[in-house]
Amino acid sequence: MKKITLLINCKDRSGIIANVTNFIAKNYGNIVYIDQHVDREQNIFFMRLESEFKKDTFTMEVFKTKFKTDLADTFDMKWRVYAAEDIPKMALFVSKYDHCLYDILGRYNSGELDVDIPFIVSNHNDLKPIADSFNIPFYHIPVTKDTKAEAEQKQLELCKTFGIHFIVLARYMQIVSSKIINQYPNKVINIHHSFLPAFVGAKPYHSAYKRGVKIIGATSHYVTEELDAGPIIEQDVTRVSHTHAIGDLIAKGRDLEKIVLANAIKLHIKRKVMVYNNKTVIFS
Amino acid sequence: MKKITLLINCKDRSGIIANVTNFIAKNYGNIVYIDQHVDREQNIFFMRLESEFKKDTFTMEVFKTKFKTDLADTFDMKWRVYAAEDIPKMALFVSKYDHCLYDILGRYNSGELDVDIPFIVSNHNDLKPIADSFNIPFYHIPVTKDTKAEAEQKQLELCKTFGIHFIVLARYMQIVSSKIINQYPNKVINIHHSFLPAFVGAKPYHSAYKRGVKIIGATSHYVTEELDAGPIIEQDVTRVSHTHAIGDLIAKGRDLEKIVLANAIKLHIKRKVMVYNNKTVIFS
Amino acid sequence: MKKITLLINCKDRSGIIANVTNFIAKNYGNIVYIDQHVDREQNIFFMRLESEFKKDTFTMEVFKTKFKTDLADTFDMKWRVYAAEDIPKMALFVSKYDHCLYDILGRYNSGELDVDIPFIVSNHNDLKPIADSFNIPFYHIPVTKDTKAEAEQKQLELCKTFGIHFIVLARYMQIVSSKIINQYPNKVINIHHSFLPAFVGAKPYHSAYKRGVKIIGATSHYVTEELDAGPIIEQDVTRVSHTHAIGDLIAKGRDLEKIVLANAIKLHIKRKVMVYNNKTVIFS
Amino acid sequence: MKKITLLINCKDRSGIIANVTNFIAKNYGNIVYIDQHVDREQNIFFMRLESEFKKDTFTMEVFKTKFKTDLADTFDMKWRVYAAEDIPKMALFVSKYDHCLYDILGRYNSGELDVDIPFIVSNHNDLKPIADSFNIPFYHIPVTKDTKAEAEQKQLELCKTFGIHFIVLARYMQIVSSKIINQYPNKVINIHHSFLPAFVGAKPYHSAYKRGVKIIGATSHYVTEELDAGPIIEQDVTRVSHTHAIGDLIAKGRDLEKIVLANAIKLHIKRKVMVYNNKTVIFS
Repeated sequence: MKKITLLINCKDRSGIIANVTNFIAKNYGNIVYIDQHVDREQNIFFMRLESEFKKDTFTMEVFKTKFKTDLADTFDMKWRVYAAEDIPKMALFVSKYDHCLYDILGRYNSGELDVDIPFIVSNHNDLKPIADSFNIPFYHIPVTKDTKAEAEQKQLELCKTFGIHFIVLARYMQIVSSKIINQYPNKVINIHHSFLPAFVGAKPYHSAYKRGVKIIGATSHYVTEELDAGPIIEQDVTRVSHTHAIGDLIAKGRDLEKIVLANAIKLHIKRKVMVYNNKTVIFS
Repeated sequence: MKKITLLINCKDRSGIIANVTNFIAKNYGNIVYIDQHVDREQNIFFMRLESEFKKDTFTMEVFKTKFKTDLADTFDMKWRVYAAEDIPKMALFVSKYDHCLYDILGRYNSGELDVDIPFIVSNHNDLKPIADSFNIPFYHIPVTKDTKAEAEQKQLELCKTFGIHFIVLARYMQIVSSKIINQYPNKVINIHHSFLPAFVGAKPYHSAYKRGVKIIGATSHYVTEELDAGPIIEQDVTRVSHTHAIGDLIAKGRDLEKIVLANAIKLHIKRKVMVYNNKTVIFS
Repeated sequence: MKKITLLINCKDRSGIIANVTNFIAKNYGNIVYIDQHVDREQNIFFMRLESEFKKDTFTMEVFKTKFKTDLADTFDMKWRVYAAEDIPKMALFVSKYDHCLYDILGRYNSGELDVDIPFIVSNHNDLKPIADSFNIPFYHIPVTKDTKAEAEQKQLELCKTFGIHFIVLARYMQIVSSKIINQYPNKVINIHHSFLPAFVGAKPYHSAYKRGVKIIGATSHYVTEELDAGPIIEQDVTRVSHTHAIGDLIAKGRDLEKIVLANAIKLHIKRKVMVYNNKTVIFS
Repeated sequence: MKKITLLINCKDRSGIIANVTNFIAKNYGNIVYIDQHVDREQNIFFMRLESEFKKDTFTMEVFKTKFKTDLADTFDMKWRVYAAEDIPKMALFVSKYDHCLYDILGRYNSGELDVDIPFIVSNHNDLKPIADSFNIPFYHIPVTKDTKAEAEQKQLELCKTFGIHFIVLARYMQIVSSKIINQYPNKVINIHHSFLPAFVGAKPYHSAYKRGVKIIGATSHYVTEELDAGPIIEQDVTRVSHTHAIGDLIAKGRDLEKIVLANAIKLHIKRKVMVYNNKTVIFS
């Protein structure tokens, strides 16, 4: 069987669900998953659907053409369709912190992440040994104020060369410019070490410590031009108290960062995230 | 508009979703919510659907008849359909603990619970003042080993008289027998003050204290013949430590009990719960 | 036995703990609880101690005098001492939201809160019936831009008349001015319906909804002159998703507000909170 | 400065705290941390204390002798004292699951765990590459029903040879017998993949799935002769739903196992755990 995942959003109106399910049936598909959501404030309809088709009679291009003509144009839909057997290629950007990198590579190694990791890029050389121990090509591309544009150009070229589908900033400490964001809109995942929108920017643990919060968090989001302001994919928190000095907050926060980033990556890989209005709809 | 909620489960097979959405469309309904789940281990399909129909042309009885003939029989479905405007009638059974009762009545009073509470039943008289302050009829039906059958008979008669749809045991301390369960299968909601299946039965806080757990919980479930073993609707937990004596566990647990029970009641009222294999599917 | 609670803070230095425990022993006290914390960044020492004394030989005034002379002056301590049998008097300020009020009064009624509630003040009349049903005097003091100073004067007079020790703003929707804060420094507890420092000010649920956070929270803090910026006593969170419209966020948030406020009140009553540097040390 | 950690427990009685702090002062120590707990049900007193001494004038042996004579005998105390600079030696036992091993070694490598890991033992050879990549000696000691006693003998010999202080079973799938437990009482830490006491024994995720719980957990505990019944050190949970098949429960649970085990190890290393009555007192 050939399995596809279809993601749709459009202005809500009567009959969308029936029309979509009818379309799939008319094209000999068997729907194995369907979930929808209507943002009633904005009157937007979202749907995620998985369907199976007989391998011999299904062609992705034909399906896409028909979908556009029969449905998408009529309902003025924004849509994406993926073939289940297509494994996305994920680029990893890192700096000096190793915890997120270790965590991702450990999961990758054990088959937990259904991706391909063609290379790791870093503005420092410190994490090369880790990349080597996992047999993944490591590219050291230093970044300074003056060389930033060039560096990003090299990064983009690597991404093109390796056919990268999305980028994960695993505690990558450089701000990613629109140069990259525009090539990968809603495809650059960052982990910010605070519970957004609290403590945006640098040294959030220090700010959290100063404010005396009783809970700290980590947030994974798609990168947009405004720092730490992009659509949130996943967040998690842990309790802290006066007994935690800044070092303790950082240590506790590291565990959160690992899990929140890994979960966001998994949701993205499984095509469960739809972005609208700088927010995400996460299908189960 | 007339709005209905339709809940279906049956053996999974190709075409169910398309057939159901088609059926709704053919009967001039507009689906405003659809969610499904397939238990792949048991090969069971579950669906929850909300649809709107024009008031003048929709008759519940006609719809039910057509549904049975056109779909349910074909797919051998178990199904229930509810009209959105039908407010369920909920009976409250209490003993001496007042916290869950207070919590439920407070929410009821402020319109948070879309139910009707025709009466409160108790095996003690202690909570009568609370029922009175909320203007709800209170029936004191004592229960002893010898009078249990009679007491349950009176409880059942009250339920019939008032057209009760479901019963909530809000820290009701008597075991409810099959006499009642059989009249209200998957319609008697209990709150058990532990994180099931840990600490079944009496004095779970004492057992939790003895075991030295670092987390305690509360569980809301449908009552079945086996004590505390029915399908779980909702659970929640809170952290505890050695600094908590049994009294502290009980105090912390009370807050959990209130919220877990209230959430289970809300899920039931909104027809978001389907029971299968002694487990629940909770639609979002 | 006479039991006291002693709270101390001062610049950290060698020998404080030994000196304090020695002092208690020399005055025939038996320490039943001791906990300390050192803020190493600021080099501040905090201690909370509970001690028992024989009733006949203990006088609070004498103890205080000796403590000042023998310890406090030497170590330049800030300190407070409480007699266990002194029940604090708590004033409740409310507006129209009833959920926190209900929750607090329910706990008060069942003996869970070791306080005295001499009166409830409100800028509206809506919640009078609830106060009446719990037999607590209710004072309606309307507040407008022009009458604010007078209103606060009346509020203060009520507090003086009834010997109020601390004030709880239970979803009281007026900003409390320095007029009141200065009379009750670190003694006015507010519940803010967000996870501070995110979403300060009005309509936090609307802002949370707009930002698309996956977790919402509630925060209890002592009121200072800067809005929602005072020392945080307690916070808690709950998960939300795209399926939650603003009304759902508000409903979920209400449960958090009740528990977070109740917990903050309990910590305050039990003298477990010390404020320093706009943060709190919470003893277990 | 020389820093020590002192752990005491004994029957509670008047004057213990004063006596202990006095003793430290008389021996020219400066207490930098003190925390105590009284189990009022059992009337047991627990204390954890950290104190600094001038290097030149402090001898551990002398201190221990004095402590025994001046305090421990008088109050019939059970006690342990550690020098801060002594790094505990930790043995890791693993089978085939790699996630906990990876997690621990990643933290070890980055300096997060203040231990020494002299070797890793396994009943399979699968995880040797991981040990090699972290440059830690790996010993493959197969275990069958018939060879179990011998295998345990070899494990014990390795532990003696390397001066092991405590053993961590990182998803080690063999039951550890009293042969080992008796040599390392309250020094063998296990991670059980359920929220104890629910789902003791094999395949807890399968049992959790069958019961339809809405929350799963992981528990770290000291191993005793009764399976999964030893004193609990740390537990944590995560929410699940009907959408999670057994494989999903296992995947979610793995993240919990890693964190719960790592946290338990850290608490043990920092001498923050005291065992009594098959429960733990965890100092902050």
